[in-house]
Amino acid sequence: MLGSTHGTLTTTSRTARVLACGEQAAPAVHGRAAPAEDVDVSGRALHSDVPDLDRFFRPSSVAVVGASDAEGRPNTGITRQLIAWAERVGARLHPVHPTRTSVFGLPCHPSVADLPEEVDLAVLLVGDPTPVIEELGESKVRFAVAFASGFAETGEAGAAAQQRLAAAVERSGIRLLGPNTNLNAFERFRDDLDGPAIALITQSGHQGRPVFTLQELGIRLSHWAPTGNEADLETADFISYFATCPEVGAIAAYVEGLKDGRGFLLAADRAARNKVPVVAVKVGRTQAGARMAASHTGKLTGADEVVDAAMRQFGVIRVDGLDELQDTAALLARARPPRADGVVVYSISGGTGAHFSDLATAAGLQLPTLGAAKQAELHQWIPDYLSVANPVDNGGHPVGDWRGRKIIDAILADPSVGVLICPITGPFPPMSDKLAQDLVDAAEQTDKLVCVVWGSPVGTEDAYRTTLLGSSRVATFRTFANCITAVRAYLGHHRFTADYHSPFEDAPRTLSPSARKAQALMRPGEQLSEHSAKQLLRAYGIRVPREQLVTSAAAAVRAAGLVGYPVVMKASGPGLAHKSELGLVKVGLTSASQVRDAYRELTDIARYEGVPLDGVLVCQMVARGVEMVVGVTSDSLFGPTVTVGLGGVLVEVLRDAAVRVPPFGEDQARAMLGELRGRALLDGVRGAPPADVDALVEVVLRVQRMALELGDSLAELDINPLMVLERGQGAVALDALAVCH
Amino acid sequence: MLGSTHGTLTTTSRTARVLACGEQAAPAVHGRAAPAEDVDVSGRALHSDVPDLDRFFRPSSVAVVGASDAEGRPNTGITRQLIAWAERVGARLHPVHPTRTSVFGLPCHPSVADLPEEVDLAVLLVGDPTPVIEELGESKVRFAVAFASGFAETGEAGAAAQQRLAAAVERSGIRLLGPNTNLNAFERFRDDLDGPAIALITQSGHQGRPVFTLQELGIRLSHWAPTGNEADLETADFISYFATCPEVGAIAAYVEGLKDGRGFLLAADRAARNKVPVVAVKVGRTQAGARMAASHTGKLTGADEVVDAAMRQFGVIRVDGLDELQDTAALLARARPPRADGVVVYSISGGTGAHFSDLATAAGLQLPTLGAAKQAELHQWIPDYLSVANPVDNGGHPVGDWRGRKIIDAILADPSVGVLICPITGPFPPMSDKLAQDLVDAAEQTDKLVCVVWGSPVGTEDAYRTTLLGSSRVATFRTFANCITAVRAYLGHHRFTADYHSPFEDAPRTLSPSARKAQALMRPGEQLSEHSAKQLLRAYGIRVPREQLVTSAAAAVRAAGLVGYPVVMKASGPGLAHKSELGLVKVGLTSASQVRDAYRELTDIARYEGVPLDGVLVCQMVARGVEMVVGVTSDSLFGPTVTVGLGGVLVEVLRDAAVRVPPFGEDQARAMLGELRGRALLDGVRGAPPADVDALVEVVLRVQRMALELGDSLAELDINPLMVLERGQGAVALDALAVCH
Repeated sequence: MLGSTHGTLTTTSRTARVLACGEQAAPAVHGRAAPAEDVDVSGRALHSDVPDLDRFFRPSSVAVVGASDAEGRPNTGITRQLIAWAERVGARLHPVHPTRTSVFGLPCHPSVADLPEEVDLAVLLVGDPTPVIEELGESKVRFAVAFASGFAETGEAGAAAQQRLAAAVERSGIRLLGPNTNLNAFERFRDDLDGPAIALITQSGHQGRPVFTLQELGIRLSHWAPTGNEADLETADFISYFATCPEVGAIAAYVEGLKDGRGFLLAADRAARNKVPVVAVKVGRTQAGARMAASHTGKLTGADEVVDAAMRQFGVIRVDGLDELQDTAALLARARPPRADGVVVYSISGGTGAHFSDLATAAGLQLPTLGAAKQAELHQWIPDYLSVANPVDNGGHPVGDWRGRKIIDAILADPSVGVLICPITGPFPPMSDKLAQDLVDAAEQTDKLVCVVWGSPVGTEDAYRTTLLGSSRVATFRTFANCITAVRAYLGHHRFTADYHSPFEDAPRTLSPSARKAQALMRPGEQLSEHSAKQLLRAYGIRVPREQLVTSAAAAVRAAGLVGYPVVMKASGPGLAHKSELGLVKVGLTSASQVRDAYRELTDIARYEGVPLDGVLVCQMVARGVEMVVGVTSDSLFGPTVTVGLGGVLVEVLRDAAVRVPPFGEDQARAMLGELRGRALLDGVRGAPPADVDALVEVVLRVQRMALELGDSLAELDINPLMVLERGQGAVALDALAVCH
Repeated sequence: MLGSTHGTLTTTSRTARVLACGEQAAPAVHGRAAPAEDVDVSGRALHSDVPDLDRFFRPSSVAVVGASDAEGRPNTGITRQLIAWAERVGARLHPVHPTRTSVFGLPCHPSVADLPEEVDLAVLLVGDPTPVIEELGESKVRFAVAFASGFAETGEAGAAAQQRLAAAVERSGIRLLGPNTNLNAFERFRDDLDGPAIALITQSGHQGRPVFTLQELGIRLSHWAPTGNEADLETADFISYFATCPEVGAIAAYVEGLKDGRGFLLAADRAARNKVPVVAVKVGRTQAGARMAASHTGKLTGADEVVDAAMRQFGVIRVDGLDELQDTAALLARARPPRADGVVVYSISGGTGAHFSDLATAAGLQLPTLGAAKQAELHQWIPDYLSVANPVDNGGHPVGDWRGRKIIDAILADPSVGVLICPITGPFPPMSDKLAQDLVDAAEQTDKLVCVVWGSPVGTEDAYRTTLLGSSRVATFRTFANCITAVRAYLGHHRFTADYHSPFEDAPRTLSPSARKAQALMRPGEQLSEHSAKQLLRAYGIRVPREQLVTSAAAAVRAAGLVGYPVVMKASGPGLAHKSELGLVKVGLTSASQVRDAYRELTDIARYEGVPLDGVLVCQMVARGVEMVVGVTSDSLFGPTVTVGLGGVLVEVLRDAAVRVPPFGEDQARAMLGELRGRALLDGVRGAPPADVDALVEVVLRVQRMALELGDSLAELDINPLMVLERGQGAVALDALAVCH
């Protein structure tokens, strides 16, 4: 059921992608900034152009500035490699050098101004690329690559030099790859492989090598973009471009830091819309790792939980190891859309089946129990005492004869099955060779995914090297874990893209009436009083308790009468936090005399503690519910982010919260709640009624709107607690803290 | 500092192990049960004999019952393999068959009674081994192996047949491997490898194949015990035996279920005392996995969190994948004890160094920052703009010449460094080949651990196959993750065994006076009333509030006067739970009239709800503290277990608890608290004072004592909440639930 829907959608989109490649690409190469009208209410771009990098990867003509054929010079080796590359891609190559007349027999020109034609690409083998960039701009060169190092990766002086380079690039209209990049884009790719390819983006050449080397295992690679310091072209540009290339089945990226969070999200959004999977390693799980990565390429790494959330929001598949990057990207590039989500584990050993299924189930894969009819069919060939419910354990022997293939075909024919995984833990040629061949043959006849885990640590066996790797239809892994990671990513990607709706389409572009009310309340550089912060919430339609700010005991008693007993009283003042700890909150006051006493006590404490007050809040007591926290924090990479978590002291300790980067829709607001370990509290525990989740979701979305509309002027917002009442009763912000920028 | 201590201790212990092998082995082969006096107070063994399996693995003479040389019979192939094996180990082989006179030219005997000599081992190639076992016993055969299947793995009838077999084995005095096992013990092992070996134990032959295949990568394997259904000899027996074999450097195990929890713990304890690492895959992360594993070998799998805790308590290193099993066991078998805990990451790429360090730090490895002098030394050979603080990034070029080796030696010479890890992400021969050779050469000259991650997915490169795998001093991995897992296990193992003190030495052997008081309170088959449960706690010196059980309003008022106002009142009755939800608790009562009203209300509710009461408790109100839960639950595999967790509704939802299997010492009780995510609550948050952790630990230990002494008669105990007061003030059990068996 799901299967056919996916199939149809994907087919449509693939067609769309083929049409799009070239058409969707921006007509003007230099149009980097989004058009003025194409920004959201916070001024952030809602659209990014796809740089037309066809002429970068497949230029007609190339200039090599600093070319050399002198013995022993590093540039000589590079020049040689570029000449070979130019021949492979059919480009004319023009050496440029101030003093040489020929290089490797090719006529050499003293400067780019003297080039015999407009070139698509200039490769700069010079120590300081900045002056050359100026010249190149005049010569209408479209792309340049700068290998020179010594820029942002080396510290402050280098960062300044990089800024000068970036400014020159901007003026010139050229698109630059680098500086501090390398020859990876110009390596020799295998051209004898076909089918969908991996396109690779790396911020470190060595870190891309394993994916490049996959070609030796028969996995096609179409491009390698080593982005270096990203003074101009960045990871996001290549994601956008690769997402429009018909030969690209998956994008693999090694990312240390990003230049700009929004640019990355827009690129990921484009990939999601085009249903092109992006698999990424992103360094920065730890603070130390983030620092090291920043010092390596001089980029922002952002708070890791925010990066993680942003990637999930836009369907980017984050993995930790380069081996997972290889295996996941290779599977996603080559596998057709799933016909069903069900996974069947098939093995020649009950132990292997149980072990693999255990890990797969723990990782969230669905292993449906095969129906009675299917099991009976399998028992024609498999002894009755073996379980074929899923995992299917054939006990070994049937693999050796004609029954082996029958079993595989019967499993694949089951409509609940989208993926068949066969873990072969060790080489045991009488069985494993025949099994491998049967799997390869069966995979040729089905549109379902067939995976094999070849568990031998050696990996030189024929069944592995020749039979399995020789098949482009069987996905082969070396470990249970990587197979499970990749299959989960594969099913997740297709589920995600089938339902994907770009949040940028619904992002607010104009200020709401709420914003104008809210702006009037902002006090630049100050923390608002509780009362003002609640006015801010009220401006956005977020419910707060009935309350009055009073400045005398008599007024407090009058206010209590209006608000209704019992009341809560709190000291209110700008910059006032931790009121409970200071004794500045009184709850459950039931009479005028209690209110009068409380007023006196609160103002006395404030005087004693030296806390300036704008008054005392007399507030309605709110019925019990689930205490939550909703807030806005600013991330260095992504700007304002929205957080929701459980409230109260316990969860302050447990930090049970979920975060999202705007813009996001209601689906993501609900998904945030699903990420909370304490989610069950909202469903009602110990006989408590279910909480008003819809109201909570609505508050999250209103807070997002506030974050977008107030932008940088709202440095921080913290509703703590937001009391979420019984279903149908809404949610009330009992306290709020707002810091203006 | 740590390094030298570890080194000394380990050297001593290794000597001890060599002396022990043979001596520690039990003199009597048949002494399976522990001597009567060697049990703890719960009647569980405190000691297990090491079966002397030398004659099993290296017999002088072997009988093959059911031997065949007839074309096409399965037993023929097996007989051939056994003859070859007997030749390799120098054993005389005697075929046994009722009708044959010779098999493969060897004289064949009609029955085991007719054998020409006492044999060490009989291999049973018969469909029903039970009758043969009877005969073997009379012929003084020491060991038997039964391949036949159709026992506990096939269901109830098979389980009964297995019980009959086990009974026959018990009567015969023979030690049996199987049934449902295979030829793995008799495979051809490489005898050209030296150094410490891996000994392998598996409950599924296929699942052991990858570890066996490690021999092709130069890793020595000394034994393979395929335990099958474990009607007699079980995983624990082989762990105990291998832990006394001098050639064994590490034990690798694939476990689906265990026959007996205590036996496993005693074996793990022996390994820990002998400082022999045990690395294990244990299936059962999910309920589904546990069921499948149980059906595969018909054993108990136990609650996974209990298995997990038990393994950690006794230093068993649990891993999930067979690849991790291979890599971790291989490292632990061969690496010498660490000289220090510090890990330095060394790479030819800043990206690789940052990425690896990020993952290593996230996994808890310590990456010390190298000192200024060491950094200056490294900068002699590495350009100044590259960071050498750790990770050490050489930028690539120094690897190509004499500097490469200098850098490695300089890092290894640093006293903070115990482990050098060099991730080489891809094959890049001009650099990677030289780097690999330098690392191998340097490893020969140091007693520190040198690890290499060879990240190429291909693995046929010379630098990997010849240079790295050719070295027994460099530990080579294929993925970052497996290297990190193995190194963490290596450092953890040596840390654990250096401080190891066997908890069995301190386990109580006799009943305490508390036990007699407690036993008088037990009511078989019943849930005790709150009052009785608290008496039970009091018997073990666990503090409960001052309280009185009353049966009239007047008595309640008198009790309140004695207990002291304010008081709490609760209905008390056998089988009564969820008192708060039923409204059967009244708190903060401050006057005689409130007490009188409360008494009436509680008894009215109980009558209305039909709850039988033994009275009403009038209890002291206890000052605020941290609410914890301490309890005893019975595990199917390990018997009573002790749990400690955070109390309150939130943590009921979050299930933040730690569990231990008795016996354990104070160190483990403290470690339990460290495992709680909400641990910080005990340290005091939001200005709360630190809680009395010592008192909490003492309660955990007293509860353990209770669990041991009351044994099976206490089905369940739950102190909830245990109010842990401010440091120095103790802990009070405010409510308790006890169920008798």
